Order: sequence, then C-alpha cells, then structure tokens
Amino acid sequence: MKLLRYGPEGHEKTGLLDADDRVRDLSDHLPDLAGEAVSTESLARIAGLDPESLPLVEAPGRIGACLSRVPNFFCIGLNYAKHAAETGAQPPKEPIIFNKATSALSGPFDPVIIPRGSEKADWEVELGVVIGREALYVSEADALDHVAGYCTINDVSERAFQIERGGQWIKGKSAPTFGPVGPWLVTADEIADPQSLRVTLDLNGERVQDETTGDMIFTVAQIVSHMSQFMKLVPGDIIATGTPSGVGMGMKPQRFLKPGDVMEIEVEGLGRQRQEAVAAE
Amino acid sequence: MKLLRYGPEGHEKTGLLDADDRVRDLSDHLPDLAGEAVSTESLARIAGLDPESLPLVEAPGRIGACLSRVPNFFCIGLNYAKHAAETGAQPPKEPIIFNKATSALSGPFDPVIIPRGSEKADWEVELGVVIGREALYVSEADALDHVAGYCTINDVSERAFQIERGGQWIKGKSAPTFGPVGPWLVTADEIADPQSLRVTLDLNGERVQDETTGDMIFTVAQIVSHMSQFMKLVPGDIIATGTPSGVGMGMKPQRFLKPGDVMEIEVEGLGRQRQEAVAAE
Repeated sequence: MKLLRYGPEGHEKTGLLDADDRVRDLSDHLPDLAGEAVSTESLARIAGLDPESLPLVEAPGRIGACLSRVPNFFCIGLNYAKHAAETGAQPPKEPIIFNKATSALSGPFDPVIIPRGSEKADWEVELGVVIGREALYVSEADALDHVAGYCTINDVSERAFQIERGGQWIKGKSAPTFGPVGPWLVTADEIADPQSLRVTLDLNGERVQDETTGDMIFTVAQIVSHMSQFMKLVPGDIIATGTPSGVGMGMKPQRFLKPGDVMEIEVEGLGRQRQEAVAAE
Repeated sequence: MKLLRYGPEGHEKTGLLDADDRVRDLSDHLPDLAGEAVSTESLARIAGLDPESLPLVEAPGRIGACLSRVPNFFCIGLNYAKHAAETGAQPPKEPIIFNKATSALSGPFDPVIIPRGSEKADWEVELGVVIGREALYVSEADALDHVAGYCTINDVSERAFQIERGGQWIKGKSAPTFGPVGPWLVTADEIADPQSLRVTLDLNGERVQDETTGDMIFTVAQIVSHMSQFMKLVPGDIIATGTPSGVGMGMKPQRFLKPGDVMEIEVEGLGRQRQEAVAAE
C-alpha cells in the first residue's frame, strides 16, 4: 500500500493510492498516520479494505508529510562511504545515531525555509524507515519484522549549525521544514529489497546525488538491530538512513542553498519530492 | 498547580494536587498531560477549576511520568561549571543541545533498568522545563512566556554508550527508564525564580549532588531563547537543563550504578523521586 496525508498543513486527512494512483479517503478508518496507527497490526487491518469501497478524492490538493506526531525522527550519519569521504570523515565502525527535532517534519512539496543566520544550508536525499512494531534488543535477522514501511526523506542540514555550534548535530538538523517526508508511506511488503533502491537528488535540474542503497555501509536491518541495543524503537518512529555523496559541503567549491533553488528528490519506488528554498521571514 | 499522572504504566489518568496534597482526578477535563494539553491556554483553563469539585482519589497508587507522548525530550550538556570540569570538558560557549529517545520517559519511582552490556550507568539530577507555547526566534526577555512549568528529572546516562560509541550522545541517554520525569508538572506561576532552586541527589543515602540552579552557566531563559534560534519548540517538549557536579563519572575512582543502588532526587519545589537500579532481563 501507498498511504499518504493530504490537505492543508495541520488539517491533513489520511488517504491511500488505489490501483490507478488516485487518492482514496481513509479518514473513516484511520484518523491519522501517527504512532500506533502505523503499527503492523493497524496496517494489516487497512490492507484488508477494498480501495474501491473508499471515497474517491477528486482534488487532494497539498500532500503533507506521510506521518505526523512522530515519537522520534532519528537519522544515521555518514552511512555511505563516498559521502563520509567527501565530508573528510572516516567511515564509521558502527551506525552513528542522531536526530532532528520532530517539529522539523514537513510536506514533500512544501518550501524549505533557510533559517535566520544560515549560510550553509544543504540537501541530503535518504531512504526513510518507519517502525511498525516495538524494537528492543532485536537481532539483525528479525529486524525487518519491525519495519512498517519506507518513505523518501530530505534530511536538510545547516552545516555551520551542525558542526560549529557545540558538536552535537541536532542544532543543524532541526529547523522548521528541514524534514520533508513522503509523499507516501510505502508498506514494507511492496519493497522486496530495501538495499537495492536508487536514490537521486537534482538541484536546479542538475543531478548531484545518484547512488543506490546497496552502497550503504550499514543495512536497514543492521541499523534497526543496532539502535535497538540502545533504545526502544516504537511505531511511528522515523529513521533517515544516511545520504550518499553529492551534498553541497562536499563540492569544490562548496555550494549551499539559496532562495529560489529547487531540489527534486526520489527514492526508487517511494515517490518524488520537490522543494524550493526560501528565506526565513 | 501541581499536575500529575497516576495509575498503571500505559494507563495513567490525570490528576492535580489539592491544597491538602491529595490527588484529585482531572481526567474528565484533561485526557492526558501531553502536547497541546499542557499549552499555556489549556493550563489556564484547568487553573479555573475548583479542586474541591474534582473527585478525590483515595489511593492513586503508582505515580507515572508527569508528561506523556512528548514531542521531544531535549537535554542541555555541561551546564554547570563544576560538572563540566569533573568530566574534563571546558565550559561551553553556548548551550550544547542533545536529546533522549522519547521512549526513555519513565515514572519518578519506577526502577531504572541498567541496559544490557552497560558498565557505566550514571545519574544526573536536573531541573526540567516544559514548553507551553510554540517558540521560534524568541528573545531571552520573552523566553519564559513560553514555559508551561517545571519538573524534576533524572537524566540517566550510560557513559560508554554516550562517549565511546560514535560521538553523538543519544546512544547513552535513551535506554528505557533513562528518563524519570515528575512526580509533578509544577506550573510556572508557582516558581518565582527558576534560577534559585536547590538540586540534590542521594545515592544509597549519601548526598552526591548538591547545588542550586543559580550555578547554571546558561539560565532557563537563555536556553529557551537559544534553542529557538535553531528549532521550533512546541507544547509538551521537555528540556532537561543540565546536571551539577557529583556524577559517577566525575568521582575518583569512578562509580557507576549497580543493581540495588537507590537514587533519591529532588529539585526544590518540584518534588522528590526515588529509583532503584535493576539489571536488564
């Protein structure tokens, strides 16, 4: 299934794409895509519905983030060898975990707001993982049983805030609109192998990121298992699994977002995003 | 007001303490203490109720965390000069922000579970701040208008996980039960000056932490204002504002939690906590 949230910001309704890629209204069955509503049990219940029985939405309008009220918006750092190299870092020995403030969550087509005082706003296309079942001390073999599905993410980052302001990365990852997520939550049954998806980002029509998730240093299963040794993952948690090479801080000369720049982003099978960068008010 | 959540874990009801420190049931007026329910508007509405009109709870039983479904569980690092010194760090030039997984949230009297593989579990009594109004680009002068109230927090930490596992601190801060919060959310009107509260922690009856929030390097107002330059704070967010000296990693020789150790914790005016450390299953 491809599940989504559509409508004005803060007033989104839930929907699913039918066989003809038309939006069907799910809100009688699922008030929101958040927390327990995206548990594997809840999604199994939704999978039992006949899409044709759901109201057709002729004009869904804006597409919002495919999740809301996420318990945690986790990210994995430096998870592609070429990206680690372009930032000047060694490939990590184990997954580096950090996170965004959950208020960074944003729709896949909403503008990305360059925050006040920012000079180094950067892009990062990533495969997003959504947790569907509590995970604590889970083995790598069992890890994917805890995944509800996948989504496209832009882990927008302010490099000066991230690196030059105290050493913990959250300051550079958390501005409002720094977390476009969606358009769809694609349930895990539709993704045969999360390690074979092409990941691309075009900046103003120029392809700057282009790799596959097969190049990830740590697989989705390894990441989920590893994280579960340190914390309990819960339904609705998002994990952005790291970005491939081609970010602005890795270019020579470095290049950062300015108002009017357009990012077009895709993870194979998970849908496209498009954001225009705008200045903060 | 002193607001609380009481009852079995996952099934807590909301309550408030009346003038005789008895629990009154608030659940007809406030389904949970989470998100918008702790906004300044919501709390003003609750303040208009006559406590005597609320059902008396004769046996509240377990006291849970005074907040649930927190959007973010932020922490400030190295915010007392003597604590920075005991860890071998320089006092920071600006607040260091990091966070806990929200699933670390725990009741003030629940056991603290030493996670699997842990050898360096440590204690950190802290003044907790709860956000009551969205804060983005807020001045220091206006910052306290965005605070709903305060609470006692134990920012339990695993030092090896925090420091030796990739550099981002979240791994050492996030295990289940690593975030005892409460017993009460004390509304801001009851705390005349958040920078004059005594903060203490007794380990097995021995006082090991004892300072006042006047020793904080960055005040609550400075922290809220600073954070709001990087992210939007939202109602229900928790900020643990840093711990004074006297943690186990600062002792010579170092001393860490073992099963059976008892932590008794207090922030002046915000209530006492007591946790026994137990081994993970």
